Amino acid sequence: MTKQRLEALSDGVFAVVITLLIFGVHVAPGPLRLASLKAMLPSALAFVLSFAITGVYWVSHHMMLHYMDAVDRRLLWSNLLLLLFIVFLPVPTEMLSAHAENPLALACYGTNLIAVNAAGLLLWLHGTAIRSDGRLPHRLNRLVITVHSTPAIVYAAAIGFGFVSPVVSVILFALVPAFFILPHPWLDRWMIEASRSN
Amino acid sequence: MTKQRLEALSDGVFAVVITLLIFGVHVAPGPLRLASLKAMLPSALAFVLSFAITGVYWVSHHMMLHYMDAVDRRLLWSNLLLLLFIVFLPVPTEMLSAHAENPLALACYGTNLIAVNAAGLLLWLHGTAIRSDGRLPHRLNRLVITVHSTPAIVYAAAIGFGFVSPVVSVILFALVPAFFILPHPWLDRWMIEASRSN
Amino acid sequence: MTKQRLEALSDGVFAVVITLLIFGVHVAPGPLRLASLKAMLPSALAFVLSFAITGVYWVSHHMMLHYMDAVDRRLLWSNLLLLLFIVFLPVPTEMLSAHAENPLALACYGTNLIAVNAAGLLLWLHGTAIRSDGRLPHRLNRLVITVHSTPAIVYAAAIGFGFVSPVVSVILFALVPAFFILPHPWLDRWMIEASRSN
Amino acid sequence: MTKQRLEALSDGVFAVVITLLIFGVHVAPGPLRLASLKAMLPSALAFVLSFAITGVYWVSHHMMLHYMDAVDRRLLWSNLLLLLFIVFLPVPTEMLSAHAENPLALACYGTNLIAVNAAGLLLWLHGTAIRSDGRLPHRLNRLVITVHSTPAIVYAAAIGFGFVSPVVSVILFALVPAFFILPHPWLDRWMIEASRSN
Repeated sequence: MTKQRLEALSDGVFAVVITLLIFGVHVAPGPLRLASLKAMLPSALAFVLSFAITGVYWVSHHMMLHYMDAVDRRLLWSNLLLLLFIVFLPVPTEMLSAHAENPLALACYGTNLIAVNAAGLLLWLHGTAIRSDGRLPHRLNRLVITVHSTPAIVYAAAIGFGFVSPVVSVILFALVPAFFILPHPWLDRWMIEASRSN
Repeated sequence: MTKQRLEALSDGVFAVVITLLIFGVHVAPGPLRLASLKAMLPSALAFVLSFAITGVYWVSHHMMLHYMDAVDRRLLWSNLLLLLFIVFLPVPTEMLSAHAENPLALACYGTNLIAVNAAGLLLWLHGTAIRSDGRLPHRLNRLVITVHSTPAIVYAAAIGFGFVSPVVSVILFALVPAFFILPHPWLDRWMIEASRSN
Repeated sequence: MTKQRLEALSDGVFAVVITLLIFGVHVAPGPLRLASLKAMLPSALAFVLSFAITGVYWVSHHMMLHYMDAVDRRLLWSNLLLLLFIVFLPVPTEMLSAHAENPLALACYGTNLIAVNAAGLLLWLHGTAIRSDGRLPHRLNRLVITVHSTPAIVYAAAIGFGFVSPVVSVILFALVPAFFILPHPWLDRWMIEASRSN
Repeated sequence: MTKQRLEALSDGVFAVVITLLIFGVHVAPGPLRLASLKAMLPSALAFVLSFAITGVYWVSHHMMLHYMDAVDRRLLWSNLLLLLFIVFLPVPTEMLSAHAENPLALACYGTNLIAVNAAGLLLWLHGTAIRSDGRLPHRLNRLVITVHSTPAIVYAAAIGFGFVSPVVSVILFALVPAFFILPHPWLDRWMIEASRSN
């Protein structure tokens, strides 16, 4: 069994999910006016948010697989678990775009993302444990685990803020992709260093 | 003709099917309350069940193709037959999520799965028959056929129980992915042994 | 420029099209009875027909690309033209499943298939013309053109019969995939011979 | 990190987008008559236009990646930005097919295309800047930037004409794919020359 088809299925699922998210953005029926564009704004923003977050997990999947060189049945299923939660994302995205101020919608969105995060961590832990050359440099491993787990805390905070201030909650969700999209020379450098040390 | 494009088309279809299954999970219109989440539960469970079962057949497809090294026109069509039944799965899944207690829905679901299973067996039989080095170790071949055929019996039992106890029927369907997801050291070991013996 | 991404895009489009065709098969709302299954039959048959025909063109695409080794801008666009008509297929399929006895639906279905066929021929002619080693054995080339063009005549006949007997028309459409799915030792042998001669 | 998965995700997204565009073409309910086909014409034309324009950007993506040999986090995100705008295209396509004479629909369509174009330029600039062998021949680089940027001017003109003559606006949009589909020996030759000079 090889990494290639695992990556092919995953890239396929990521590609379909980020494309299908657009189905949550509807053109209002009736004449097209500036007001109809304004009415599309919440769903368009929810689309961009979920697209960016899915992008974060695709880039992360890409990076994680880079450090793996063996595939067993359990890795295939860890990966399918991650894909299950990625595939589920359009549902809370639809809730968010229709009920952006509802704490329940924000809680569902955050819970889904925490599940994605946890499944990603499982994938990392198992995939690096079965590396043919033993294990990764300790510092690199710890760094990846730290960087990968932190968003779960942000998502949990966002769920909490949903009951107080939905705006803060949405901003917290948006901070996660914003952090990973911005350039972080220290992060790139740290990762290169870590992968060299032991 | 090579395995590569056969795998590419198959991975594409599997990826699209497991992603499209989510379209069967609808957010109820109207205000979002805990009750709306509860109303989504049957369709969410049907989604997870079909996702997991499709995952089983993807892993199995992955494994089967590993033992094949030649492609002819008939193999392409055996594979397309398998994909046809995989693609059909969202239809009985929708029936199941809307009518979980209806024996007819359970029968349609089970019949589709039996068809998937039979097509998978056909693919295995033809793909191993045209191997360039003759044929597979006999014990491995028999093991794969046994492990692959057993679910059909479970599906048939689930169809039968549908008329008596729909809950038992659904549990039977769920047992199949549960079995293949759980670790089976004996199965993995047996398969390694079998592939060595003749 | 390489064949690889051309094949990747094409496999992606074929995979998505054959999967999306299932969206034309609807579970009727209301209680699920044998009568609801019967009501699904025309759309299920239209799905199977279009799935099989798309499969024929995927296998044919697979085979054609096998004989090409150079890619230029025009080949990319010939391929996109083929994909355009493949992507369009769900529309007349929907017409066919809703209005199976309407000559107009049968004519739209046939016209779309003739367009697919013509675009496939264009792809073959250009792709073999730019082969790095000059050109293909003449007999092989003529054989492929004959085998590939014949369905267009069947489609045209099916369009004509649509105005007289819709059943005959549908049978004619079904004959095309039936022919290509059945084993044809003479065809396989002839093709091997032809590829050797000059 | 390698180009391969970046291309796989991109080909997946392009394949899904050009296939999903067909969902904007609806068969009118009720009996099927020549009038129903005529009613489908605007949405079918909008489909063909967006399909062709997406094809232009796929061919261009194909060509651009050909000149890149290194992948960093920023390149992954430049590519995801391009895909974000590609994925968004079905929304203004739907506006265009429902309100072809509305300047607002034409402006949304054009704005989306300008965004696609700008993101493509960003991808090119960053991807060629991180080439392992330093930088591209200056003339080739300038040629690609010129050829890639020009459509943005046409789109801007099309937005402007939308307020005066929607027909001219649509023709301007159609000119872009028409230009890139037609053979341009001088363009192909110029590009080959440019890639040789320094």
